[in-house]
Amino acid sequence: MNRASGKGRVFALGGVQEIGKNMYVIEYGKVMVVVDCGSKFPDENLPGIDLIVPDISGLLERRDHVAALIVTHGHEDHIGGIPYILKQLNLPVYATRLTMGLIEAKLSEHGLLRGATLNVIDADAVLDFGPISASFFRTNHSIPDCLGVVFDTPAGTVVHTGDFKFDLTPERKSQHPDLHRMAAVGEKGVLLLLSESTNAERPGFTPSERTVGAHIEEAFQRAKRKIFLSTFASNVNRVQQVVNAAARTNRRLVLLGRSMVNVVNVAREIGYLNVPEGMLIEAEEASRLPPEQVAVLCTGSQGEPAAALARLAAASYRKMEISPDDTVIVAASPIPGNERNVARIIDQLYQLGAQVIYGSGAATGMHVSGHGSQEELKLMLTLMKPKYFMPIHGEYRMLHQHRLLAESVGVKPDRIFIVGNGDIVEFGDGAAAPSGKAPSGDVLVDGLGVGDIGSVVLRDRKQLSADGILIVVVTLSKKDGSILSGPDLISRGFIYVRDSEALLEQLHKLVLSTLQELKSSRIKQWGLIKRALKDELGQYLFAELKRRPMIMPILTEV
Amino acid sequence: MNRASGKGRVFALGGVQEIGKNMYVIEYGKVMVVVDCGSKFPDENLPGIDLIVPDISGLLERRDHVAALIVTHGHEDHIGGIPYILKQLNLPVYATRLTMGLIEAKLSEHGLLRGATLNVIDADAVLDFGPISASFFRTNHSIPDCLGVVFDTPAGTVVHTGDFKFDLTPERKSQHPDLHRMAAVGEKGVLLLLSESTNAERPGFTPSERTVGAHIEEAFQRAKRKIFLSTFASNVNRVQQVVNAAARTNRRLVLLGRSMVNVVNVAREIGYLNVPEGMLIEAEEASRLPPEQVAVLCTGSQGEPAAALARLAAASYRKMEISPDDTVIVAASPIPGNERNVARIIDQLYQLGAQVIYGSGAATGMHVSGHGSQEELKLMLTLMKPKYFMPIHGEYRMLHQHRLLAESVGVKPDRIFIVGNGDIVEFGDGAAAPSGKAPSGDVLVDGLGVGDIGSVVLRDRKQLSADGILIVVVTLSKKDGSILSGPDLISRGFIYVRDSEALLEQLHKLVLSTLQELKSSRIKQWGLIKRALKDELGQYLFAELKRRPMIMPILTEV
Repeated sequence: MNRASGKGRVFALGGVQEIGKNMYVIEYGKVMVVVDCGSKFPDENLPGIDLIVPDISGLLERRDHVAALIVTHGHEDHIGGIPYILKQLNLPVYATRLTMGLIEAKLSEHGLLRGATLNVIDADAVLDFGPISASFFRTNHSIPDCLGVVFDTPAGTVVHTGDFKFDLTPERKSQHPDLHRMAAVGEKGVLLLLSESTNAERPGFTPSERTVGAHIEEAFQRAKRKIFLSTFASNVNRVQQVVNAAARTNRRLVLLGRSMVNVVNVAREIGYLNVPEGMLIEAEEASRLPPEQVAVLCTGSQGEPAAALARLAAASYRKMEISPDDTVIVAASPIPGNERNVARIIDQLYQLGAQVIYGSGAATGMHVSGHGSQEELKLMLTLMKPKYFMPIHGEYRMLHQHRLLAESVGVKPDRIFIVGNGDIVEFGDGAAAPSGKAPSGDVLVDGLGVGDIGSVVLRDRKQLSADGILIVVVTLSKKDGSILSGPDLISRGFIYVRDSEALLEQLHKLVLSTLQELKSSRIKQWGLIKRALKDELGQYLFAELKRRPMIMPILTEV
Repeated sequence: MNRASGKGRVFALGGVQEIGKNMYVIEYGKVMVVVDCGSKFPDENLPGIDLIVPDISGLLERRDHVAALIVTHGHEDHIGGIPYILKQLNLPVYATRLTMGLIEAKLSEHGLLRGATLNVIDADAVLDFGPISASFFRTNHSIPDCLGVVFDTPAGTVVHTGDFKFDLTPERKSQHPDLHRMAAVGEKGVLLLLSESTNAERPGFTPSERTVGAHIEEAFQRAKRKIFLSTFASNVNRVQQVVNAAARTNRRLVLLGRSMVNVVNVAREIGYLNVPEGMLIEAEEASRLPPEQVAVLCTGSQGEPAAALARLAAASYRKMEISPDDTVIVAASPIPGNERNVARIIDQLYQLGAQVIYGSGAATGMHVSGHGSQEELKLMLTLMKPKYFMPIHGEYRMLHQHRLLAESVGVKPDRIFIVGNGDIVEFGDGAAAPSGKAPSGDVLVDGLGVGDIGSVVLRDRKQLSADGILIVVVTLSKKDGSILSGPDLISRGFIYVRDSEALLEQLHKLVLSTLQELKSSRIKQWGLIKRALKDELGQYLFAELKRRPMIMPILTEV
């Protein structure tokens, strides 16, 4: 293959036309490099499913070509799928220190830490994978240590921004977005830009994380008793601001929730979090201190029922309680789908007599987004000056809005591609264009099973969930087809049997008459008998109750 | 009983510490008057349930005392429970014309119209129910014809505001909130005020519905092809503004969705909606007109999967389609819980190539709330000058915020009662105080069954929905306990059997060994055998798969 005139390819295995499960592949010749491997949570259409990760069957078919996994940052939607993927394809992983610390914790839970090849890099690294080389630029986001990736290939330069905002006054200087390097990359020439679209619907410029710190400190100053603050554990900079506020108001700090303890440990170890000596105490110790000397930093800001905040609100946390006139700050915006759980917790907190500070960021100043708004997305597009553009990380409407933003700063409309997962964009010779499809899809994780839940199982779960199940058990004689036992009717999730004797009697009669009719018609195929029972009972129940339970005839012949 | 010194009582059967299912009772001596009888939709904790209505068993116990049902307005959370209640307690119903039109449609669906006693009133009506008399004041809300109720009793005056905002520039003059009558009521003296709290968390003053009209007309002017607008059918004033915009831009109007057609018919009949002759056309006719002469008004603004907008977005509406460069306006804010469904529809609309105008009211101007914000709640409190206050219509945090508003305008903190459903507030001798509890609760409607779904059924549905069911069928010999047939394993919603042969084989062995063990221990009680099978299989499956399907052993002896 002539290297100079060969084509490169880019496609998503997750993250376009959806939120979460981010995974992108860049390919040139016989080399593929993967960016991120995230997970996402199922919605109400996937009952019982714990997690969704990308389908990598296409990569497995070409496993010798896949050179590396580069991870842009440590959020679940970028690292959550790694254990499931590494089990099948043991790639070398490249990530910055904090990101790698979080990956290690995850692999360790899955017993995969030993076999993994983990390479910690910084933003100055240059990685060579044959014809593809990767270099990086620092971005700023709601977790430290984020990278954008620059892929240089013989077919042209492709840039993947990762997640970003332009926080020009970050809590730590080392987290300044590296505008100068971005400018240099753009100056050198970007053929194709992949840029994140999470806040593409939001006008303006996302406020700095530092604005949150001022509000936190003010609330700490005002609080007369214990103060609780719940936020994302991975937002190390916000955690630092809470630590600072506690220090300035002479409070000791209790950490509640496993992920909060984990992240604080990792972040302190690598020097991303400065906690004064002796500030952290256990919950037991806090109960012996005057309330005005206690602050609590806890998980659960999304209303997760098992997390610390929900348990505190339900007064079921053993070692710590919320007392009247304590202050509780929920420093987060609910992710769509979590609103009701969060609202329930706020209600409970008020019922405990707490002062509660909650609500969307603008109202309280206690939260800002980690994603750049429209002006920042335009800033990235302007710095990178891409010839072609592919918006990523977002549902269709976000990608659509991002396209409009790109057009507004001069990218030609026919050079912008809104793709789906698996859609290949081919690039080379100074151009790019959609071209074919790679295998892609959702792999559903349920308990320890991965990918074994199919559409039939989910359809059954939905039916069972809506109207339950009615089981009809009959034992027939092999000799003459007479009924030896039954019909017995058993139901679960359908009706409360004790209140439904008349109905059950009717159903019983209906089973008998149906069997009798089939017998006189000399119908003996079990499939037909079962079908007839399902139809008769189903029609009767829908007419009587407007319900459609799953009906399961169990016929045994002895 | 000495009338002058007797006590009155007020309590909610629904609507406090929750959104929806509004129902309140005021009682004096042997007379009870009911205000509203709403329904609410179940959340994810009530799988398969269609609707929730108030439990009226307390009223049924004293059915001779219950004099009337007064309905403040025609929204589902105020009228949705009426058919279920009237079936058990045939009360005379009092409501204004539009409200009654909507109640009639509902009763007619349930075949209850014939037996009902329906009395149309206007805001000037005075109703006498023995010691309790009811008079009214006009309020303004997102549906016409709303009332607040003033109850005069020998024990003092109680006011129920219904839902309201203070729209001082309503679309129709007849819908002006009657500030003067409210002032007169307050001047005369209100012992206890019940006021709605829906927007108690929202600062400021809710914008006038008229502001939406201007934005709608602007969008109609700009649209070059067909224009679709989806909003709540019951918002007759918004419908009028859409009609006006269509008239001014020379468009004919198609109505899609049953409730849109119904409400428009009722509202036109009673003169609340003026539609120019010949403006309304059928979908078929629209397809023969140039697209710039067509407007479509449709249901489904909350993303309801079966409503017109969802079907249009999925390109599955038979008689009408959305073409590239058509304009679609979603003139509503998603109610918590509906965000994801609405977002999915926006995505689909963009994929069809439509121009979409969506997002919360402030961003687009296409929606305003029907509920008063904090300044309006304070205005109501100021007009009514109540001695005692009971915030209603809202979850706990909203009632709490409303309490703070009441305190800010001078109601004494110890005279404000945040109650739960069923909590009685007793009033008389110029005072009021919490006092005991009336029966109250949720009645679950599932299909045609009302109240027959208990907690066991719901718990089963949840388990079935998460992990499905595994049925074990064994036929044993009565003589010697030997296995005549089986064990057969049947699963639904658990695993996909074709992919799980090895697992099924293990389970099969486990059933056999468990039965064998029980036999050698001479255990013959079926309860014990079933329990043992459940435990063994349950432990095995959780260890292997981290799943907990419902396990149902079916043993038959012949």
